Order: sequence, then C-alpha cells, then structure tokens
Amino acid sequence: MYIPTLDDMLAAHDRIAPHIHRTPVLTSQYLNDLTGAELFFKCENLQKAGAFKARGASNAVFGLTDEQAARGVATHSSGNHGTCLSYAAGRRGIPCTVVMPRTAPQAKKDAVRGYGGRIVECEPSTTSREAVFAQLIAETGAEFVHPYNDPRVIAGQATCSREFIEQVDGLEAMVAPIGGGGMISGTCLTLSNLAPHIKIYAAEPEQADDAYRSFKAGHIIADDAPVTIADGLKVPLKDLTWHFVKNHVTDILTASEAEIIDAMLMTWKRMKIVIEPSCAVPLATIIKNKHLFAGKRVGVIITGGNVDLDQLPWQTK
Amino acid sequence: MYIPTLDDMLAAHDRIAPHIHRTPVLTSQYLNDLTGAELFFKCENLQKAGAFKARGASNAVFGLTDEQAARGVATHSSGNHGTCLSYAAGRRGIPCTVVMPRTAPQAKKDAVRGYGGRIVECEPSTTSREAVFAQLIAETGAEFVHPYNDPRVIAGQATCSREFIEQVDGLEAMVAPIGGGGMISGTCLTLSNLAPHIKIYAAEPEQADDAYRSFKAGHIIADDAPVTIADGLKVPLKDLTWHFVKNHVTDILTASEAEIIDAMLMTWKRMKIVIEPSCAVPLATIIKNKHLFAGKRVGVIITGGNVDLDQLPWQTK
Repeated sequence: MYIPTLDDMLAAHDRIAPHIHRTPVLTSQYLNDLTGAELFFKCENLQKAGAFKARGASNAVFGLTDEQAARGVATHSSGNHGTCLSYAAGRRGIPCTVVMPRTAPQAKKDAVRGYGGRIVECEPSTTSREAVFAQLIAETGAEFVHPYNDPRVIAGQATCSREFIEQVDGLEAMVAPIGGGGMISGTCLTLSNLAPHIKIYAAEPEQADDAYRSFKAGHIIADDAPVTIADGLKVPLKDLTWHFVKNHVTDILTASEAEIIDAMLMTWKRMKIVIEPSCAVPLATIIKNKHLFAGKRVGVIITGGNVDLDQLPWQTK
Repeated sequence: MYIPTLDDMLAAHDRIAPHIHRTPVLTSQYLNDLTGAELFFKCENLQKAGAFKARGASNAVFGLTDEQAARGVATHSSGNHGTCLSYAAGRRGIPCTVVMPRTAPQAKKDAVRGYGGRIVECEPSTTSREAVFAQLIAETGAEFVHPYNDPRVIAGQATCSREFIEQVDGLEAMVAPIGGGGMISGTCLTLSNLAPHIKIYAAEPEQADDAYRSFKAGHIIADDAPVTIADGLKVPLKDLTWHFVKNHVTDILTASEAEIIDAMLMTWKRMKIVIEPSCAVPLATIIKNKHLFAGKRVGVIITGGNVDLDQLPWQTK
C-alpha cells in the first residue's frame, strides 16, 4: 500500500491547477453568532463539475502517461466521482467509462454523459457491479480510478486544504464530511505536514456511522446498506483512507437526519449556496457540539452541490 | 438634484468596506459554451444580508452625522432594501423603521426584524404607504433612505462594479438587472469614469418593461402594477436613476417569464448558487441575444439571493 506524501500533494496541485477552480471561502455572521465559533466555509460545491472530486479525478487523469491515457479511465460510482472523472477525462480528451446501477437516478447518468463519459449499466448489487467492471477493464485496458482508496485521488483532494490554509490564517480546527474518507484523508495528508496544530474532525450521519464505529473500535467496520439523506457518505472506509483516519483524525462526530436537513436549509437560506445533504453534516455537528468549537477559528469543507432541485428535503409534498 | 460623482463612490467604498463582503466572481464553462461569451458573475447574492443593497444602505447609514444617526433611518420597501437598511442600521446601532404593506410575505418581515429593524404596516396602496410614511418621519425625524433614487445609495451600489473591474481584466460589457435603476446607475457612475469602453446593458422582464419603454421613448414611463416573477424589478425609474440610464446605458434587453425561470434554474444547477428570479434576467437576455455578447468578456451582476425556498418557480405543485 503506497501512502501519498506531501510531495505528491504539491505535484498534484501543479498538475491540476489549470483544470480546477481555486474555490472561494465564505463566512456568515449569522452562523458565527449561532455557534459561537468563527466559521470559514471552503466552497467545493463551486468547484468544476460541482464537487471536490474534480481535484482527485483530475490528478489521476493528468498523471497518466500518454500510453495509459489512450486506453482511457474507468470507475464505478453513481455519485460525484463518476461525474468528475468524466469531466477530467473530457479535459484530457480520453475515454471514460462509468459502471452504474441501472436504477441510478437519471440526473446522475445525464451528468456523466454531459461531460462525455460512457455509462455501462449493471444490476444494483455488488456482485453484478464487480463482474461488469472486471469485464470492462479486461476488454478496454482502462485505468481504474477508485473513488477514494487511491493515492492519486487522495493527493488531489489534499490540495483543497492547502488552498484553505493559504486563504484563511490561524485556523484551529477543520471539519469535513466522511464517507469513504477521501477528502478527510487528503485533509490529514496536508494538515499533518503543513499545519499539524489544526484539529481535524470528520462529520458523519448517525444513520451511516460506520467510520465513527470504526474509529472507536480501532478497525474498519463496514455498514450494511445504510440509509441516509446524505447519499455521498454511505460508502465504507478502505485500507488507505483508514490509515489517515486512524492516525490523524481528532474525532468523528455524528448528526441525525433532521439535524442534517436543518443545517442544509440554514446554509441555503443564510449563505445563498446550493449544497448537497452530505456537506451539511459538518455544520450540523458543529451546532451540536458547540463546546468543541466556540471561540475558535474553524474551517468547514463544503464538498459538493449536486442535488435534485425538483424536490428538496425540507419541502413537504 | 445632486448627481453622485466618482469621488462619492470612492468615499463610499472606504466607508462601507468594514460592513460589506468583497464578493467573489464565479465562472461556468457550461454557460460560456452555451452563450459563446466568456461570462463572469459578480455574486452579490453572497453579499451581507443577501443582496447588493447592503452597499448603498451602509453608505447612507454610515455617512450620517451622529446627530442625524441618533434619530434613526426609515424607508418603505417590502424587498431587499428594507432588510439591508436594517442590517446597516444594526451595525451602527441606530433605529431603523420600515413601512411595509400588511400583506407583505412573512419571510420579508422576519428578515427586517432579524436585523433589529422595526416594521410599521400600511395598507397595500400607494396612498396608504405615503400617508403612513409621512407620519412616521414627522414623529421620529428619521432620515429617509430611498431604495434607489438617492445619491448616497447610488454611490454605494457603484462600489460593486469598481470591485468587479479590479477582479476581472478586460471586461467588454456588463449586464445588470434594472428595476428602479439603483444598481445600473451605480454601474454607470463607476464605468463611465473608470472604464468608459465597457458597454452597459440593463436587463428587464418583458412583463415589467417600463425602463425599456422609457429608454426608447426618451422619458420616464411608469408601469401600472406590473406582474412578474422578478419581484425586485417592478418599481419605476426616478429622476436620478433616469439621468444615468439615459446617458450611459448602451441598451435595455428584455426576457419573458419562462426565459427568466429557465435561466434561474440553470444558474442554480450549474453554478450552485441561490439566486432570486430578478438576477436571472441578465443571463436570460444574454442567451437570447448571443450576437451581442459572443466572443466577448462579459460581466454579469448577480444582485441577490433572497428567495422562498419552500416553493421554487420550476417546481410544479
């Protein structure tokens, strides 16, 4: 297992700079007053393709040799990683194939295709996905880019917190959502090297709290089909992300579904940005654990803004 | 009639800097591809209190002598100006009273009160509003800050395009919505002095096209109770804003209700920001008039993000 280093992050940042936004940091007096903390929000929902995953995907795609690149890239993801890998592959002009359950939302399929990616459908089961994916790789020789358990991807995500500490002085804590752990691992990579005094908190839905339970148990525990509105956070930790979580995360905090929806609506209403449910989890945990953050300068990573605008979770039918 | 000058804008910027955000400029490759232009969006929806009107209101409030300030400020507005004046007055710690029809949406009343403003209700008619407002001023001696026909307000709004030309080089055109004309007048003030080569377009709903008809006729024409989803743009031009529109605007472009809603949804979906219908009008007019903007670097002012999140215009019940 290769653990990405600070140099990998620095090389990634040079490599991807032409393909990503240096996203802005926003503040809200209302949320500061509410929490007693001084909050800074790094808006990766305003990132290319609408999510931080454009960083890791771009790093993987633009790090390939021409020979590798010619065979294209492939992944399995019904979320932002598939969209962002299509985005990056499109920028390089190489093929991208995403294996996705045939039951995935049409909007997700459209997003992948919108960036020029090809979708290969599987049945909505792990067995089918693995079989279809293995066949695809065998046929095309495409480079597999895992959504998070990949050193190239983690080095790419790590560029986010590098920008963040350049943009905001004196941060004392940083909070990011945790699903598979790609963003948190990148955050750990950067901060443990460049700003080790900053405490790193991971935020997770109570209803998909496998990372929390893993952290407390000291080994990876995977949830069996968790149900949460924060659909980007359902996937389990893997060996590489577990390495970073285990060694560098201060604590994992959880929030209920109602708390997540409240924090999401509050963010839309007060900050005027479109965020997915997953990125509301950090704010929900900060509101719930004021004692940890009051009086501190706290960085919050808003991870993405890809959400169904036809039906929002606070709207009753 | 006092016409605000470049010096007034510069003084305003110094005065309000501690009370406003220097809002970010966002771009979207998707919208560039769609329009053939290079679009830059100045995000005043991310401004304090959710709208550019925080600029003009802060300039008026912080320009008062202590003696004037002690008597407070007052306005009539059921929109962003009332909220932003309350915000600015709250920052200075002086009273703010907003006269508002009793039928105004609860959310608007809550926003004013949320910043510490007091609401005095009138009947939903011009006669009642004027009578109630005159009585209020007589009783309190409060300083009237008009939503747009006020040199202090225009000088404040003018700071937006000053930031914009500092943030983006080589702009060739700028497009902003027009209602009463405060933002457009501020834009004219700044650009006619600092960047007179930039063409200024005002964007207006077809269903509230009084500024368009005024511009073509050469004198102010006021609409009688226009009906449009872009509710910030229903008010008519006044002498001071007409001065700027008449002398410095290149053209006024209009868009239909359906075009406005499409552009609004597209902005939410692709740019991940919450914008009011009013700020979608510029994009709608750019999409409709590609020949004017293709190949050019175009600044678009996103004016505000105060919208009812419980029911969005593209959602069918």
